[in-house]
Amino acid sequence: MTEPAPVFASGVDHERLTSQLRFVLETDKLKRILRRNMLVDGSRRENDAEHSWHLALAARVFAEYAPQGTDIDRVVEMLVLHDIVEIDAGDTFIYDTQETGSQAERERAAADRIFALLPEDQAEHTRALWEEFEARTTPEARFAKAIDRLAPMLANWHTEGGTWVRHNVTRAQVADKVKIIAEGSEALGSYAAALIEDAERRGYLAAG
Amino acid sequence: MTEPAPVFASGVDHERLTSQLRFVLETDKLKRILRRNMLVDGSRRENDAEHSWHLALAARVFAEYAPQGTDIDRVVEMLVLHDIVEIDAGDTFIYDTQETGSQAERERAAADRIFALLPEDQAEHTRALWEEFEARTTPEARFAKAIDRLAPMLANWHTEGGTWVRHNVTRAQVADKVKIIAEGSEALGSYAAALIEDAERRGYLAAG
Ligand SMILES: [Ca+2]
Repeated sequence: MTEPAPVFASGVDHERLTSQLRFVLETDKLKRILRRNMLVDGSRRENDAEHSWHLALAARVFAEYAPQGTDIDRVVEMLVLHDIVEIDAGDTFIYDTQETGSQAERERAAADRIFALLPEDQAEHTRALWEEFEARTTPEARFAKAIDRLAPMLANWHTEGGTWVRHNVTRAQVADKVKIIAEGSEALGSYAAALIEDAERRGYLAAG
Repeated sequence: MTEPAPVFASGVDHERLTSQLRFVLETDKLKRILRRNMLVDGSRRENDAEHSWHLALAARVFAEYAPQGTDIDRVVEMLVLHDIVEIDAGDTFIYDTQETGSQAERERAAADRIFALLPEDQAEHTRALWEEFEARTTPEARFAKAIDRLAPMLANWHTEGGTWVRHNVTRAQVADKVKIIAEGSEALGSYAAALIEDAERRGYLAAG
């Protein structure tokens, strides 16, 4: 844990600001958590922080494809924090069933530690938003998850298969992810279905 | 330029979606634009995409230090897109007066090209938000800029001076940046002032 500088700002609740700084400094570590997929140009693996940034941007660009009434500001807020638990739990490759088995437990423990660095009111708010994202019980959470699932598909298509090829992922496995996209956005689900059909045709994705 | 996959999604305006995908794919390049400052652990230089993510997170954590009535959702939206022009213009080191001289022109040309990839309504909206950020004419823009100036100070303090030491930056030069922080947030300005005073005392920052 990186302790904030021992300095006092006049007119500010020192303990509260210190908690907030501790959280901000701790979350810097998300920049060092690597995902399986590559950047769109194939030059290196993507990290969780830059991935979260790209999703926040994409959510706004694709906002019109969310169900009417979806609060995009909340979607963006969720996406900015959705991967923070991976600082402790690590990135879980969604096609690895052994990893995904213990994922929920590991991520819950991470949430217990990391969100609790914040002052209590902010910790509760942040934790609740993350739980909402995971549970996909609201249009915001479903749309956020759709964006999160779509982004690596784009990167995979543009790197001639990327993680699909490297990990022998089949079209049937990807179809499950397309379903999650469609549940968040009909239009993006339709696009994702067309994209993986094309990927299979090109051999970026194994049939079956 | 990375062309989107040549696929059609049913029930979607193909031209519009293609423009949006082109922008999302193009902005992936922000992950490869390196800044001068290091990560908080000193392990490597930070890139613009992960930097933008961290600011979006920090803006919400520090929201209570913005002037009353500041729309934090707009602050986050600004911060997510504030560095996109650096895909073409590169990162400008704020203490390099030669670089900062041509910066405005280079960034304007970049904005002309990159935001225009979006459908016209979204291009206009995005361009206007970026101009607002640069001009600091609203509380949202001033608070966004304050967060943008504070983050590298934290990284520098925690890496025993970082870019301040490497580029012989003096306390007087940093004081100008503290002023910009104070214009966006009194509390964060007060914290930044205390932080650089402490940094000078520790020799992370030259006097003068
Ligand atoms: Ca709002």
